[in-house]
Parts: sequence; structure tokens; C-alpha cells
Amino acid sequence: MQFPKSSKNQVSRLAKRATLEAESIYAILDEALFCTLSFTEKNESFQIPTGMVRMGNEIMIHGSVGSHFLRTISDGRALCVTATILDAIVLAKSAFHHSVNYRSVVFFSKAILITDPQEAEQVMAAFTNKMFPGRWDEVRKPNASEWKKTMMLKLPIEEASAKVRTGPPVDDEEDLSLAVKTGIVPLKKGFENPQWL
Amino acid sequence: MQFPKSSKNQVSRLAKRATLEAESIYAILDEALFCTLSFTEKNESFQIPTGMVRMGNEIMIHGSVGSHFLRTISDGRALCVTATILDAIVLAKSAFHHSVNYRSVVFFSKAILITDPQEAEQVMAAFTNKMFPGRWDEVRKPNASEWKKTMMLKLPIEEASAKVRTGPPVDDEEDLSLAVKTGIVPLKKGFENPQWL
Repeated sequence: MQFPKSSKNQVSRLAKRATLEAESIYAILDEALFCTLSFTEKNESFQIPTGMVRMGNEIMIHGSVGSHFLRTISDGRALCVTATILDAIVLAKSAFHHSVNYRSVVFFSKAILITDPQEAEQVMAAFTNKMFPGRWDEVRKPNASEWKKTMMLKLPIEEASAKVRTGPPVDDEEDLSLAVKTGIVPLKKGFENPQWL
Repeated sequence: MQFPKSSKNQVSRLAKRATLEAESIYAILDEALFCTLSFTEKNESFQIPTGMVRMGNEIMIHGSVGSHFLRTISDGRALCVTATILDAIVLAKSAFHHSVNYRSVVFFSKAILITDPQEAEQVMAAFTNKMFPGRWDEVRKPNASEWKKTMMLKLPIEEASAKVRTGPPVDDEEDLSLAVKTGIVPLKKGFENPQWL
């Protein structure tokens, strides 16, 4: 599946790095542990990082019913969401061609409140298992009072695009003979061993 | 130095995790390799991840003069910037008290175009050395044509706040006797060895 082109997901810079393929977009959202969510209030821009889990063509977020930002965005206003994974620093011969290898997703959405208890439980299970596989089966499940304190929103993934850079530096022909070491410096990925209490 | 309280940097949820201390805010911005920048266009929210380096009370960003987003935000409109570092997954006895250890900064700003060549060079040196310490002295510096293709903006750090969670899970008293293992799972940090070409 491909997201249809729109005025908002047309990537103008370095368009060869861009894709509208749902498979690539979903893979980035599944690897990213959090996203950044932006919205507009009185013509000013606000932004907040928040944990999320993707289920189908939606991402699910949650927090306290007292959360100012959750309450603000739950009115269905226009949202923008990004998730970014930085993979490596790219060291070229010239300062100009230094770069980074990365995978990022930008999409647009409007939040929908989750009110069905069964759906809420499925989302919480998926979220908990994303943080630590299999964890949902081990923990004490939320009780009625905890559910009452929790607000859950689903954000349909619309007008999405991904941008990806991979591979070595690309230098100008005339710089190739310069005695400057080039390469990539990967970021460490994944988790350390759990520190159990 | 502390950022003064404003209507925009008052943290309402879990306020005990919040700080307006410049030292803490700067340390997060210095460790984060990129930020996410949001702005409003025709009452819709847009967002983009971008590399940055902090110098004093400003962050510096750059890109192509052809970049739609750089050109859009260079008109001095209201911006919001976040940088987030995820440190660990926090595993509690109850699903409800699962959390993450993180350090995040939110601030507001308006971009200022950098036009002074000497300032531009200092920024590019700082940016290059942030990616790989000492790199600026080793690489071919930008030539006139490359500078012409580069747009640089500085974003004063205004109405900033940081939010930080550290430490083990905090469970409810009545859950402490449950036979559920608890602890934290740190994310791997830093870089692998460079892969030289």
C-alpha cells in the first residue's frame, strides 16, 4: 500500500530519499519508541514527545485525563506527528557532504478518543508489550480507578511520508584524492540487559 | 540561570519532573543530536526533525537554501522546538506504573537568519565537531559555491523547560508483594567504532 500524494506529504528536498510506502512507514513507527506530536493553539505551535504504539493504520497514545496536551488535541484539531531514528554519522571528505543516516516519518492526523473498554485494553497490552515483549501477561492489569485516570487517543496515519538515508558518504569527484579519512559512525542500538530490582 | 516562568513553559503534569534551570536544559540540548521543530502554516501544524548545535542561548540549524521548511520558518513566525533523550524502560509491578526514564526539552523561538560569514563558519565548525569531535580541522572547508547553497538560522532559546524522569519504578504499596519482577531496561547509548572506508 502507498499513501496517496498530497500537498502535505510531497518531499521537495532530496526527494530520492522519500517514500510513501506504508510498509516502510510502519516499520519506522514500530521501531521508534516515541513520537513527537505538534498542534496549533491560537496560531502558536506546540509540541510534545510521547510514547506510542502503531496498530494497523493508527498510532495509539495515552496519558492522564488531567493532561493539558491530551485534552487540547482530543478536540479533533489538525496534528502533525514525527518519529525519527538516527542510525549513523556520515563523515565525508568535505564539511559540506557530512550527513547522517536516518529514518524518519512525518504524518498528519486528527485524534479520536478511545472509549470502548475492550479496545482500550488491547491498546494498553500492545503498548506494554512494545516496551518489553511479553510484559502484559506478567503485570497487574489496570483496575477501574486506573482506567478512569487514563485517556487514550488513536491517531489515523494520513498524508504520511518517510525519508531515509543509508550508506557511505558521497563526495565530490575533485575531493576524492584528499587525504581525509571517511566513513560512518553507527549509533549504538537496542537495550542493555535489564537491571532487575 | 533559570528561564522565567511563562504561560507556555509551565509544566502541569508531573510538575516535580520539570525544571527551568538553563544548565539542565543546555545539557540535554548538547547531548541530543537532533531536535524536532514545529511551526504553523494556515492554521495547520507542521513538524520536521533536524540536526542542531547549541551555542550560548541559541540553537543553530542549517540546510539547503532550497529547503521549503527553512524558507518558511525564516520569516520569524512562532516556532516550538523539542529534543528528547530516552534513557530506559521502567518496569513496574502494575501496567499503570510502567514508565520511561527520559530527558526532554521544549522551548519556543523565532528564527533569525545568519548572514555574517564569520558567524556562519563558527556555527559550521561547532556543528561538524558536535557530530565527530575534532572533525572540522580535518575536512575540506566549504567553498564559496557551497556557502551560497547553505541557509543557516539561529533560534534563541525562549520560554524553555525540561522534564526528566530517573530512577526505579514507583509501585503502589498494595502491589509490592506481587510476584512480578521489576526493574529498568537501559537503552544503549553512544557510538560504535567508526567504520572507515
